[in-house]
Amino acid sequence: MKTLLILGAGLSSSSLIRYVLKQAEQFNWSVRITDQNIETVQAKINGHPNGVPLNFNALDAAQRRPEIEQADLVISMLPARFHIDVAKDCIDLKTNLITPSYISKEMKALDDAAKNAGITIMNEIGVDPGIDHMSAMKIIDEIKEKGGHLESFKSFCGGLIAPESDNNPWNYKFTWNPRNVVLAGAGGAACFIRNNRYKYIPYSRLFARLDHLSVEGYGDFTGYPNRDSLSYRSIYGLDNIPTIYRGTLRRPEFCEAWSVFVELGMTDDTYSMVDMEVCSPRMFLNAFLPYHPVKSVEQKFKEFLREDRLYLYSKFEWLGLFDEELSLKSETPTPAQLLQIILERKWVLEKGDKDMLVMIHEFEYKLEDQLYKLTSSMVNIGEDQVYTSMANTVGLPVGICSKLILNGQITDKGVLLPVKKSIYEPILNELETYDIRFIEEQEQINELAI
Amino acid sequence: MKTLLILGAGLSSSSLIRYVLKQAEQFNWSVRITDQNIETVQAKINGHPNGVPLNFNALDAAQRRPEIEQADLVISMLPARFHIDVAKDCIDLKTNLITPSYISKEMKALDDAAKNAGITIMNEIGVDPGIDHMSAMKIIDEIKEKGGHLESFKSFCGGLIAPESDNNPWNYKFTWNPRNVVLAGAGGAACFIRNNRYKYIPYSRLFARLDHLSVEGYGDFTGYPNRDSLSYRSIYGLDNIPTIYRGTLRRPEFCEAWSVFVELGMTDDTYSMVDMEVCSPRMFLNAFLPYHPVKSVEQKFKEFLREDRLYLYSKFEWLGLFDEELSLKSETPTPAQLLQIILERKWVLEKGDKDMLVMIHEFEYKLEDQLYKLTSSMVNIGEDQVYTSMANTVGLPVGICSKLILNGQITDKGVLLPVKKSIYEPILNELETYDIRFIEEQEQINELAI
Repeated sequence: MKTLLILGAGLSSSSLIRYVLKQAEQFNWSVRITDQNIETVQAKINGHPNGVPLNFNALDAAQRRPEIEQADLVISMLPARFHIDVAKDCIDLKTNLITPSYISKEMKALDDAAKNAGITIMNEIGVDPGIDHMSAMKIIDEIKEKGGHLESFKSFCGGLIAPESDNNPWNYKFTWNPRNVVLAGAGGAACFIRNNRYKYIPYSRLFARLDHLSVEGYGDFTGYPNRDSLSYRSIYGLDNIPTIYRGTLRRPEFCEAWSVFVELGMTDDTYSMVDMEVCSPRMFLNAFLPYHPVKSVEQKFKEFLREDRLYLYSKFEWLGLFDEELSLKSETPTPAQLLQIILERKWVLEKGDKDMLVMIHEFEYKLEDQLYKLTSSMVNIGEDQVYTSMANTVGLPVGICSKLILNGQITDKGVLLPVKKSIYEPILNELETYDIRFIEEQEQINELAI
Repeated sequence: MKTLLILGAGLSSSSLIRYVLKQAEQFNWSVRITDQNIETVQAKINGHPNGVPLNFNALDAAQRRPEIEQADLVISMLPARFHIDVAKDCIDLKTNLITPSYISKEMKALDDAAKNAGITIMNEIGVDPGIDHMSAMKIIDEIKEKGGHLESFKSFCGGLIAPESDNNPWNYKFTWNPRNVVLAGAGGAACFIRNNRYKYIPYSRLFARLDHLSVEGYGDFTGYPNRDSLSYRSIYGLDNIPTIYRGTLRRPEFCEAWSVFVELGMTDDTYSMVDMEVCSPRMFLNAFLPYHPVKSVEQKFKEFLREDRLYLYSKFEWLGLFDEELSLKSETPTPAQLLQIILERKWVLEKGDKDMLVMIHEFEYKLEDQLYKLTSSMVNIGEDQVYTSMANTVGLPVGICSKLILNGQITDKGVLLPVKKSIYEPILNELETYDIRFIEEQEQINELAI
């Protein structure tokens, strides 16, 4: 009997736990799950005979190590910064490990140690990162195999609201951590390459330099650039590709409107505003608009928008940005914190609302003097508010990977990413049975769009 | 015979050294001056019998302490971060100290220790900070003395090029540290108060929210907001003033054009650009403009400017921003670093060029139910490129203060600012004899301009 240990049973673990308990019946696994909240674990196991609810503190090495020692595989769903300590224990105790998170420098440095211990440490195997790597590498390998030469790779991903639940003027609701959405892109400049030219966009312009895309049956999207597109070149073996770009998807007009918050300084999380522990949305907005003895906040805001962006005005009105009620309360009234409170009231999931995950890859390549554009896109709708698309697309690849490791189908050792065919192929194939599938379209083109 | 010790004989010390050597003759002081470059010291002392050139390392406590011990007063013209160690030695050895720099938290914390040691540590007694404090406090005290009630205080200062040397389309040349000019305002938001409302401006908008001013005989200026206007309330005893604002002066159109660099991300100093150790201004600019297969850099730049700012285009052309020559060389090609190289070629002082220091205070106050606006402004032109206006306006108040301390006219103990009448009055009076004088104008007004 194989033992699987899952650390963390929060929101993003629901689909993973459902999947591994199902597999556990077939393969006779014991699935031991810990969380600081034992009721969360019990609810997710729901009396399943192969599940063992625990509530030891996964951050305490003394409590964690005996459990890791008796396990064949650990899945860490803890916040990313805690993976490294778990990984060191796993090396020490020769237990395999999976995390859905980005490989940190510290994790990367454990590669030799993991190989020497004879264990697999698989990372970046959720959705983004995860499904993005696997679905991109599948196409990249196929193009290379047939002798094609890649000229451009652009990749976009977005966690959005499903079309049937999309009923507000922003075409957006919080389906994931609101703080991460408010702070998206904050800090340094975004960097990518187009036609061999490095391009840089400061945060203040990030939501004003957009790509426009569409997916058959799902309508139009816009993409704003992610901070770092360059590191993907070496991961994907595309070191000399002339164009590489990664972006985040939103519905049209979202980014144009969000850019207004950024330009006004309302997404800044680096300072607390004076005397704003209790304030109104109107007071909050007015703090970023010039003083005027007569003009209203509405008027000053319209002047800031400028004529060419006035069409966005109703979005802000709908958010209640001009409300005078002293309804914002925060002990740390940073601009980002106050904005988040305003948004969380309106971008809230209603009963029955479903989320949607969209991923679009665009490749341009040359094969025997002909240029081609290949688009591979995936749209996945959540089942409900527990088995969301986000939970499914993060949890299922992690779950499938755990099966492949426990069943001896993945035997590679070291600190790994899912970029190898023997790894991504069985995972992508099984994901299709859960309706996480990519639709490919290809056309001949006369020149590179870049 | 009194002994004065000056640490640091760089550019900003020239006027100070000339002044104190002149006083030394009259009052029989020994003026001991150290710098890492002994020739700089010798040149500035120029054989004066009261001057003693030294070149011990002022950053080395073992070399510094014997000199401090035998001095009656130390003037630290070192970079601001080194003042604190000098101050601790001065307390220990009971020697008075003057620095022209902002009081750091660490310096402030030495107040009790300085009082116990019976010494004066005078700070912020250059031009900005320094003359700004003194000239503002003079008016504030006068208004309060006659029973007036302050409603608004705005203060502006700028180091510019003198009108007779002002011959480029930016109406600007580097008269001071270029790096500080390129990075001015970078980082967090600017904060000030207008009519009891706190206002915040993010860096990306700093050069787009401007005040317009003029000084009789010297033409028009614009002011952009400084980072911190709030701390001046308590310093000036104006805790409840409804409007307080501090800004930096430039000539008209400078800020509007500079804002373009900021918006494009060309003033960012937080990352190095890839493969740009050797590049052209055109390549540098193009890295911040969208890729386009056909449009020229000029065309893309014009589109970024938008129709309403096209009048600024010739300024950028004049800077050589579109040049294709690979003339930019930097081992640390941050955007700010590359921009500085471009600017340093063009904003350079020519032989005979003079600098200019401009300071403008605007007060609004109520006296016996009548509102008044009082403007106090100072324009000072440099003598030449050694005795610049910047060197004079920094060095003379420091020098005069040193005379007042050595002659026993300033006897206050502790960590001080020059905000007390008994301190600022004799200094401002003597500054007038060096043509550093404020012109006051007052008018009755019907309502506050705020």
